[in-house]
Amino acid sequence: MNNALALAYAQRLIACESVTPATGAVFDALEDMLVPLGFTVERFISGEDDENPAHGAPVENLFAIRLATNGRHFAFAGHVDVVPPGNGWASDPFVPEIKGDLLHGRGAVDMKGSIAAFIAALHDIPKDAGTISLIITGDEEGPAIHGTRALITHMQKRGSIPDYCLVGEPTSVNRLGDMMKIGRRGSVNMWISVAGTQGHVAYPHLADNPIPRLITILAEIEAITLDDGTDWFQASNIEITDLNVGNKATNVIPAQAEARLSIRFNDLQTGDALVSRLRTLVERHGGSLTAMISGEAFLTPPGAFSGAISAAVEEVVGIAPEASTTGGTSDARFLTNICPVVEFGLCNATMHKLDEAVAIADLSALTEIYCRVALKMLAAEA
Amino acid sequence: MNNALALAYAQRLIACESVTPATGAVFDALEDMLVPLGFTVERFISGEDDENPAHGAPVENLFAIRLATNGRHFAFAGHVDVVPPGNGWASDPFVPEIKGDLLHGRGAVDMKGSIAAFIAALHDIPKDAGTISLIITGDEEGPAIHGTRALITHMQKRGSIPDYCLVGEPTSVNRLGDMMKIGRRGSVNMWISVAGTQGHVAYPHLADNPIPRLITILAEIEAITLDDGTDWFQASNIEITDLNVGNKATNVIPAQAEARLSIRFNDLQTGDALVSRLRTLVERHGGSLTAMISGEAFLTPPGAFSGAISAAVEEVVGIAPEASTTGGTSDARFLTNICPVVEFGLCNATMHKLDEAVAIADLSALTEIYCRVALKMLAAEA
Repeated sequence: MNNALALAYAQRLIACESVTPATGAVFDALEDMLVPLGFTVERFISGEDDENPAHGAPVENLFAIRLATNGRHFAFAGHVDVVPPGNGWASDPFVPEIKGDLLHGRGAVDMKGSIAAFIAALHDIPKDAGTISLIITGDEEGPAIHGTRALITHMQKRGSIPDYCLVGEPTSVNRLGDMMKIGRRGSVNMWISVAGTQGHVAYPHLADNPIPRLITILAEIEAITLDDGTDWFQASNIEITDLNVGNKATNVIPAQAEARLSIRFNDLQTGDALVSRLRTLVERHGGSLTAMISGEAFLTPPGAFSGAISAAVEEVVGIAPEASTTGGTSDARFLTNICPVVEFGLCNATMHKLDEAVAIADLSALTEIYCRVALKMLAAEA
Repeated sequence: MNNALALAYAQRLIACESVTPATGAVFDALEDMLVPLGFTVERFISGEDDENPAHGAPVENLFAIRLATNGRHFAFAGHVDVVPPGNGWASDPFVPEIKGDLLHGRGAVDMKGSIAAFIAALHDIPKDAGTISLIITGDEEGPAIHGTRALITHMQKRGSIPDYCLVGEPTSVNRLGDMMKIGRRGSVNMWISVAGTQGHVAYPHLADNPIPRLITILAEIEAITLDDGTDWFQASNIEITDLNVGNKATNVIPAQAEARLSIRFNDLQTGDALVSRLRTLVERHGGSLTAMISGEAFLTPPGAFSGAISAAVEEVVGIAPEASTTGGTSDARFLTNICPVVEFGLCNATMHKLDEAVAIADLSALTEIYCRVALKMLAAEA
């Protein structure tokens, strides 16, 4: 194994400025790396140029595949877009810089370093071990509307559905290998609105204050226990994240009262069922509810795939990763619809922060881990 | 009785533009009317010129007195400041205009018409019937910090405390004489704040959402029945008038949640006791509360004074006024501290509205009523 490869790839990817939504140079770099390794590279732009900028379009997506006639189809999924660097970096966030044992640059851990490690690992995966694909988007840190979802459509059209998919998100916490994600909670936001009739506080009988009804609704919601969690998931959780009336006048009963909820839920719930349940509650008190489901919960139950990752991690770094389902959402929420998905990658301590950096030794170790996982899963029983 | 006097006085007062806080010309007009009637007129400015404009300073106040050696001391209280006219009047709000049976102009009913009627009534009140005073401020429609309170201090210093005070606010509703106010509810606003710890909704155990505690506080407050009212007052009432979190991010648990209450209370409550009670409730849940008491409740129990008004109204317009304690606050909340106070005046249908207008016939009838009330009370037993 060439320990310098992942570092070199990571440096080249970091040097391509690719704040979300990403297109162009960073994908050129990927194509340059993958074509010599025997990959067919398919790139396409998703999202219209003239759309609402809040939609994060246009974005570029890349699907690369190296077909084999035997073995399983193993996919690596990731994103080359990064969050904005912000001000205050010690060095240019888009000029990769080695300081001691660390490589600094935006995307070092989230997740150009991980993509670099996977491509480095390909050098040690024989072409006939099985089919390998890379599912790489420029829209994960943004709205994620035109990214992995479009890639899945593309793969379905060309008939290239993998048997397993490893998402290279930075799942490690304190040291490389201490955590993988075998699932993620689902996420839904809801907006509650209660209408009343404005009036003067001195004449409450002529008005209809919507706030007491909103309080009743929210008190009932607060009293809900959705579930107690499962073997693999913590309990589903409702947070009231905003209240808004916007009434400046002390002597006025307002005409409208609003609240916002965020629910993170496990696989005992579904977004639709939660929306329906809460809407019924809200409407019973004369309010209305709108909702946006960001993603459903998913779980890849512990088994061959997570076992292979666990074994590879232990062989390379000497610890067994915790199989977790905590944290926010990732593109794994989409990929779970086509095959078993597990997330494993670098330490997330500096992700989205100033002076994001990866330990150079971790790039080498992750390359070795990814290589072993791919080889194990390519050889897995059908 | 000269029926044209009140109309002429009202026209002259309306022509003096006096949006709150008022000074100058409108007081010159009053002085011109009162000096020929034998009154000593004392004018003074209250409030510093360089103060916060929100304090509504400086304002002018006028105390006028005509002493008699016998009889009681009867006072008329009112204000010459008016609320801003707003846009859309059919005619200039500060050019009094007679259209049919109505006199149009800002302040026609609230309450230059009433002051005009009282001064017109003085023409028919013999000087030896008793002591008459006028307590007139330019700061009733504003913060009321430098108005009637300063006048009371002035009267206390000069030893001129009346035995009875009639406040000329427009208390009539559908027709002149249908309602007088023998008391007013008190008013207090409260601001509740609950602090927590900001965090990500995906990691609620690392945050402390203040909203559920605010909901608990507000649900407890909503469950409070302060009282069931009295013979003269409706029940005290708590309205939650605002909720504010101001959290734009759907995935963030906020650090702060706030609410505002307005309580209108009868004479079974006091502002201080309400603040103390609510503060205890709020602090029990880790919140904090600040309060501003706008005025305490007061009641001039039905008796000789309200009886005299009732009799005079019935003699002049043929109906008996309802003795009410409804509505907002007025300067009577301050005057009640020095003597019995009842409020009686014109119809309030157009007050604070575009095209404010008074029926010219009402000006005459009110003059007659005020004259009869003053004569009755000046002759009252000690």
